[in-house]
Amino acid sequence: MMASVPSARVGAGVETIDTPALVIDLDAMERNLRRMAEFARAHRVALRPHAKMHKSVDLARRQLAAGAVGVCVQKTAEAEVMADGGIDDIFLSNQVVSVSKLARVATVAHRLARRGGRLSIAVDSPLGIELLSGAMAAVDIDIDVFVEIDVGQGRCGVAPGEPALALARRIAAAPKLRFGGLQAYHGGAQHVRAVQDRRERIARVVAAVGRTQAVLAAAGLRAPLVTGAGTGTFALEAASGVFGELQAGSYLFMDADYALNERASDQPEFEHALFVKTQVVSVADDHAVCDAGHKAHAVDSGLPRVWQREIEVVACSDEAATLRGATLPQLGEALWLIPGHCDPTVNLHDAMVGVRGGLAGGVVERIVNVDARGALS
Amino acid sequence: MMASVPSARVGAGVETIDTPALVIDLDAMERNLRRMAEFARAHRVALRPHAKMHKSVDLARRQLAAGAVGVCVQKTAEAEVMADGGIDDIFLSNQVVSVSKLARVATVAHRLARRGGRLSIAVDSPLGIELLSGAMAAVDIDIDVFVEIDVGQGRCGVAPGEPALALARRIAAAPKLRFGGLQAYHGGAQHVRAVQDRRERIARVVAAVGRTQAVLAAAGLRAPLVTGAGTGTFALEAASGVFGELQAGSYLFMDADYALNERASDQPEFEHALFVKTQVVSVADDHAVCDAGHKAHAVDSGLPRVWQREIEVVACSDEAATLRGATLPQLGEALWLIPGHCDPTVNLHDAMVGVRGGLAGGVVERIVNVDARGALS
Repeated sequence: MMASVPSARVGAGVETIDTPALVIDLDAMERNLRRMAEFARAHRVALRPHAKMHKSVDLARRQLAAGAVGVCVQKTAEAEVMADGGIDDIFLSNQVVSVSKLARVATVAHRLARRGGRLSIAVDSPLGIELLSGAMAAVDIDIDVFVEIDVGQGRCGVAPGEPALALARRIAAAPKLRFGGLQAYHGGAQHVRAVQDRRERIARVVAAVGRTQAVLAAAGLRAPLVTGAGTGTFALEAASGVFGELQAGSYLFMDADYALNERASDQPEFEHALFVKTQVVSVADDHAVCDAGHKAHAVDSGLPRVWQREIEVVACSDEAATLRGATLPQLGEALWLIPGHCDPTVNLHDAMVGVRGGLAGGVVERIVNVDARGALS
Repeated sequence: MMASVPSARVGAGVETIDTPALVIDLDAMERNLRRMAEFARAHRVALRPHAKMHKSVDLARRQLAAGAVGVCVQKTAEAEVMADGGIDDIFLSNQVVSVSKLARVATVAHRLARRGGRLSIAVDSPLGIELLSGAMAAVDIDIDVFVEIDVGQGRCGVAPGEPALALARRIAAAPKLRFGGLQAYHGGAQHVRAVQDRRERIARVVAAVGRTQAVLAAAGLRAPLVTGAGTGTFALEAASGVFGELQAGSYLFMDADYALNERASDQPEFEHALFVKTQVVSVADDHAVCDAGHKAHAVDSGLPRVWQREIEVVACSDEAATLRGATLPQLGEALWLIPGHCDPTVNLHDAMVGVRGGLAGGVVERIVNVDARGALS
């Protein structure tokens, strides 16, 4: 679909990028990449960034090159795209209970195993275990399976403790499945603003994981790995001593919503690295309108912010955002929006424009494809 | 991007459609199509449906076959896609003030003119007029230009009356531009729930248009056409006597948000025709989770509704929706969601699955491509 590729030419100046376009400040992104990699190394915890955020093979490779052990994905189709792109260690951190999808899961697992990699997956139900075991039997290889426990998010996952043990036992007993450990992610805690409130939530997460580990140990089962955490709380999970792996994804780009979190002193600082370049197409007495609406950036976590200008986005429609401020922008002027939520914003675009040298005066270094855009199934 | 095409096979039963998938109930859609076409004929008003909603050449052609005079688009890239697809009469009902985009506008206008069609466009600024006139000079053809007036939406458009006259005069005086009339759309009024409140808003719209027409007439300029209206209010604009053309788009699919409007007795009833098929992937004591989050349906106008079940969507995340109800669905069960807002939902998908014979027991009749998905520029 040519129509959806932003008009940007490698080597051209930032001012030539057509609008609206999703733009990566590569310098800022690489600093974020390094800071998180250094944090994980310093805290002796594995980093498995969530590729559901960027959906890009190119960026996954750069995360691996910086020390990540693999990537997480949330959808079977994302696993397929990442495997196609040469990513060898993929964790599907979500529930799959469809026979046709599990056949695809098994195919990916088989492909990765043949080249020395692996696919692992989460479950939270006996049915999920039974169907997965059947699918893996067809390709005749083993798969690491993580029991997802609900640590406060109220979404997927069984209760910590005995219910988790029951599933772990079923996994251990099921042909072709190996008990890999626990998936314990509290999505809601990521966006709790105050440091102290996040500490309390993650303390409860850690307690729930510890209780589950104790129940498993008492039954003679050990959880080889506990995996979870996101950009809002990863320093707490890393410090807990029970999490062996961090799944944060948004740290690479940061968004307007995460920037509202009070930052803990023990957490590295990340910079905004993802922007929507937009043009002002209409100016009235008391407001202006730019050409990026919620088909260009997702508003599920709030409206975007305008970068380094005293202008506020006050409303959004499909193809436009309405702006107010003491000094309105000029008709035709370019502005840069910081999306409210990076994951669904990236999913609106087929490609991102990678800029080197900053948003003012930089040049287009490369186009980063959103390989798994729309990979929903 | 193969990964994003829903797994549906023409001729197969509805139950075989992989999830999440965007599905059209073709029978319901065709009834909506006929009802709106009949309404426009009966009220002697032209129908120019907004193709920003479905972004599909196939559906635009069916609207034309049922009597529509052409389509509206909101983006230059959408005009290109529709022109590529053989649509001959396109109105770009939005502001374009970029030199490179206006060169593309002129190219589309030139292509359409050569085959006996036409592109028309809205403006709301002297700069827009000047740049457009320059772009049209390069291809040496005339274009119909509509002055957009702000009739209460507070987005694009000049004030009604004298400011509109000033722009109309500039258009009439500018090389290659013809004054086509007024673009007068009140987006906010579409979603006002009570019939009486919508009546009052559109009465003010009609008064503003009438005032502008009087000012134009006093200056010896006539607005050949007034175009506007949406699915929430079109019966009021049609009855006004001043609107010659209706731009409604959502009537074809209807969404959960529009269904909350109190229906006026003089307005045809439209049925939900767009659904997201989703599978339940996790069931807990008090909630269940399905596999369609806000990467599969847009939540900017509220959460989706579950079709014909006593189950409520209570939360949405990127890849999941959380469900509650007195009776929870079964693990693995398929559900049908009515999206909160059809336009940005369609834009998330590369294709829609057209089903004949209903969501229960029907078969896949055809795949409808979302040709202009991501056509943002």
